[in-house]
Amino acid sequence: MSTKRIVVIGGTAAGPKAASRAKRLDETAEVTLLQKASALSMASCGYPYYVAGEVKDRDMLLATPAGVVRDSAFFAGAKGIIAKVSTEVTGIDREAKTVAWKRVDTGETGLLPYDKLILCTGSVPKVPPIPGRELAGVTTLTSLEDADRLRELAATNKDEKTVIIGGGLIGMETCEALVAAGMDATVVEALPQTLSFLDPELALLVQNHATSKGAKIITGVGISSINGQDGKVTGVTLADGRELPCTLVIMAIGVAPNTGLAKAAGLALGPTGGIITDERMRTSDPDVYAAGDCVEVKNRLTGEPMLAPFGDLANLEGRVAGENAVLGDTATFPGTIGSGICKIFDFTAASTGLSEFRAKQAGFDVVTAINASPDKPGFMGAKPVVSKLIADAKTGRILGFACVGLGNVNRQAAEMAMAILGGLTVDDVAMADLPYAPPFSLAIDHAIATAHILQNKMRGLMRGQSSIVAKSRIDNGEHPYLLDVRGPKEFEEMRLGRGETLIPLGQLRKRLGELPADKQAPVITYCKVSMRGYEAQRVLEANGYDNVTVLEGGLVAWPFGLEQ
Amino acid sequence: MSTKRIVVIGGTAAGPKAASRAKRLDETAEVTLLQKASALSMASCGYPYYVAGEVKDRDMLLATPAGVVRDSAFFAGAKGIIAKVSTEVTGIDREAKTVAWKRVDTGETGLLPYDKLILCTGSVPKVPPIPGRELAGVTTLTSLEDADRLRELAATNKDEKTVIIGGGLIGMETCEALVAAGMDATVVEALPQTLSFLDPELALLVQNHATSKGAKIITGVGISSINGQDGKVTGVTLADGRELPCTLVIMAIGVAPNTGLAKAAGLALGPTGGIITDERMRTSDPDVYAAGDCVEVKNRLTGEPMLAPFGDLANLEGRVAGENAVLGDTATFPGTIGSGICKIFDFTAASTGLSEFRAKQAGFDVVTAINASPDKPGFMGAKPVVSKLIADAKTGRILGFACVGLGNVNRQAAEMAMAILGGLTVDDVAMADLPYAPPFSLAIDHAIATAHILQNKMRGLMRGQSSIVAKSRIDNGEHPYLLDVRGPKEFEEMRLGRGETLIPLGQLRKRLGELPADKQAPVITYCKVSMRGYEAQRVLEANGYDNVTVLEGGLVAWPFGLEQ
Repeated sequence: MSTKRIVVIGGTAAGPKAASRAKRLDETAEVTLLQKASALSMASCGYPYYVAGEVKDRDMLLATPAGVVRDSAFFAGAKGIIAKVSTEVTGIDREAKTVAWKRVDTGETGLLPYDKLILCTGSVPKVPPIPGRELAGVTTLTSLEDADRLRELAATNKDEKTVIIGGGLIGMETCEALVAAGMDATVVEALPQTLSFLDPELALLVQNHATSKGAKIITGVGISSINGQDGKVTGVTLADGRELPCTLVIMAIGVAPNTGLAKAAGLALGPTGGIITDERMRTSDPDVYAAGDCVEVKNRLTGEPMLAPFGDLANLEGRVAGENAVLGDTATFPGTIGSGICKIFDFTAASTGLSEFRAKQAGFDVVTAINASPDKPGFMGAKPVVSKLIADAKTGRILGFACVGLGNVNRQAAEMAMAILGGLTVDDVAMADLPYAPPFSLAIDHAIATAHILQNKMRGLMRGQSSIVAKSRIDNGEHPYLLDVRGPKEFEEMRLGRGETLIPLGQLRKRLGELPADKQAPVITYCKVSMRGYEAQRVLEANGYDNVTVLEGGLVAWPFGLEQ
Repeated sequence: MSTKRIVVIGGTAAGPKAASRAKRLDETAEVTLLQKASALSMASCGYPYYVAGEVKDRDMLLATPAGVVRDSAFFAGAKGIIAKVSTEVTGIDREAKTVAWKRVDTGETGLLPYDKLILCTGSVPKVPPIPGRELAGVTTLTSLEDADRLRELAATNKDEKTVIIGGGLIGMETCEALVAAGMDATVVEALPQTLSFLDPELALLVQNHATSKGAKIITGVGISSINGQDGKVTGVTLADGRELPCTLVIMAIGVAPNTGLAKAAGLALGPTGGIITDERMRTSDPDVYAAGDCVEVKNRLTGEPMLAPFGDLANLEGRVAGENAVLGDTATFPGTIGSGICKIFDFTAASTGLSEFRAKQAGFDVVTAINASPDKPGFMGAKPVVSKLIADAKTGRILGFACVGLGNVNRQAAEMAMAILGGLTVDDVAMADLPYAPPFSLAIDHAIATAHILQNKMRGLMRGQSSIVAKSRIDNGEHPYLLDVRGPKEFEEMRLGRGETLIPLGQLRKRLGELPADKQAPVITYCKVSMRGYEAQRVLEANGYDNVTVLEGGLVAWPFGLEQ
């Protein structure tokens, strides 16, 4: 067998993984990794923490767990891989099976032959055509150089004001990093909410928390221009005419697959703009694989192609591409369900599977439930979490789960991602056997309790609605009777402030006479988290009230402000 | 419809849950809860944290998340349930459908009729027939009164020595509680290891940690007697003749189902000694349900009945029993996979599904892998975790997962419990899409990486062995060539100390000449976690060495002491 020549383009996440896997599975292969930047294997997901100063040492973003920086010498020695940095690929000749490269420092050029090529060209930040985007002071946070620059700024220019355009994951993480570093940062998001992977009930809770920590957030309005003087940013003008003075603008609209090379080489791109591959990560050319942010992948829940530019998937895709390039299509990548998590100050926000919005968009008939609870028993120093469970109305199959809060969202989201991957139903999760001890979870795990709520809703035992639906019913003149069933002390500390009546659950059976005489009149019950609210609904229904609904998640999940 | 009378015996976990669920689903039912103890709904899993002083306020063990103590008045008012405490049930007449009760304080007696009865009589601590077990100073940690007594002792008698008989979950948690409270505590376990739900490689790591924190652990030897003077404990004598002076002995051998009432009433008990129920939690009498520690449940992996006295399952079983008692068998409890987690000082130890030992006992042909890694990227302040994955050799179906360490074991165990419940295979987990961001996990989640290792082993790409197998090969004169492929600095700080050779991975390809000339000679490779150890194995095999194996988990998973 002659030596197989594997060329990998791109050295951030998918590329090094593909190259390493290929070499491990075929020590005789000649594996070459070409990287345009000067660094390799950058932990780009760590940039916000580096900007915030939480990651002290820049090298840690580039190092193995043993502390060795992953440079060309490391790849040569430890991995047996030829890694060429500062080397841009300028073209691919699929006939001749060569790539043309150019040193960005010296200008040197050359051709490199391959037997199998793996494209891991990543993504590029989207920069919308806003006037002024060319001004000095307009940047992104997508490269290590960006991160260096922002870290420097955050450390030295604390008085400057920053506007972040885009309230997605990167925008919110960047905002947190700057505020944590002591800067003044405003997120401007054109959509009505930030973090569009979350349904609004949960996104609003995250926004409230970010705002309470000093972040400024403006939603529902775009940017009409970035303004400047002497070539430097002085502010932005919003579509509604408002002016925000600032000296730094960070574009965080999102990223687009970097497909210039693939397109020029005539490889098929998909409807999302990403490179099309099959399950083996093989492009339209059987000798060319692709992995990472530059490809589109299958959403396992909808079957539709989507872009999923996440570091974890890049690694898995790279592992598959690297293996198949040397062993000949023995591995498959099954696609994504769309799982993400982020830290926003003391909050964690996570989502796996489809949001209600996206599930409906994909044509599912869905049922949902919202649950608020502590993350573990009160005696263990619990913190609240709020989650939303989305399931298929017909089969009960879990389609999505989102969770936010100060508590342990991480466990909840990870376990529910596995539940979705396993095709579990609401009934399955309702009876799941998870590890329990007081330091780690509630005896009835939060997500299991969320499944109990949804199961109760699906069976008509509980009638609930989200904060958003409840608010619109209150605002739109339906005049529901708002029944708070907490204790008087709880009520004194904090309440809805919308004309509610307090009847503690423990007195409800005796005080039914205080409710509206008309048993068809709408009643909304709730408590702190609406467990007691649900019990109140059951009591009222048993007593003939038949228009009773529960405010799901209670006051903990109410994002519209409480009266104190 | 006449009022349905539901009687629930037992008021700790399953009982209150069953009663509450029954009342919520049928407000017209008359639900009576009979409890022998004076307290209700005790968070018994919290006792160790209460003894340690971590839980300050005793009422928190008895309170709702809103801080209301769950006493009889609470049950009457909020739940509509008649809860009678200090009321022992002395007999069940299944013909007459009555239970006979007796007030433990006043001696008053009476009969209570039922339409449906739910037995939640819990468990009793096992007390083996060791001479001296009747001495003052011999106790258990199974009731709130036990917890009160131990907390008092731990607070006031710090100089006393304690011996804990039994190194299971409760024994180790109790030991931690006492050591954390500043006492001298020794666990004596007759088996060769503590925490028998873990395979020994992982149990030894936990023991090492506990010992480093001041716990004393003696394994592989039983207690022959508890000794005393004037009716009070003065020490214990071990089976090997050793004497341990102490003034307190805590029996933590485990618990047995409390089935006296059920047995006397002629209900069927199973081979494990627990009450037999069907999936609906119905006993051999269709009008009697049972839930919680007193029942035996189906192990979903082996199909065999087992005892699973855990608070989370008690709640789920109680929920099913309570529903079925009023609605007529609409709910089912599918059984357990055996999931548990515990905190041992700064370590967390968790297991879900079967250990290798138990899987083999159940007749499975298993494959396993051990993985050690940080729990998140190094730049985020990572802590190590070590896991073991057990799968069916034929189908690749995950049978078990255990994880221990200073890092985030909780997420790993919860997600893998769901993976087992979903019937996922090693290949499925290897390509799982889990939420990732640097504060929460590695880009390739630890459990996914463990699946990668097992996948590599199943495909013959990686040849590994556990620390225990490697140690026995070293000890038994096989003289394997021990190849440490870390860096010189790492080697200097800490090493195996068994005659190993250091050749850093980066130099291995050039220094093959230093290896044994006989390419059939046994070589064991490793590094800190054995990722590089695996790469070394691949390099050596590609160069003709064909008896190379990897020490799985590397030095991090080596529980037999390292040379510093």
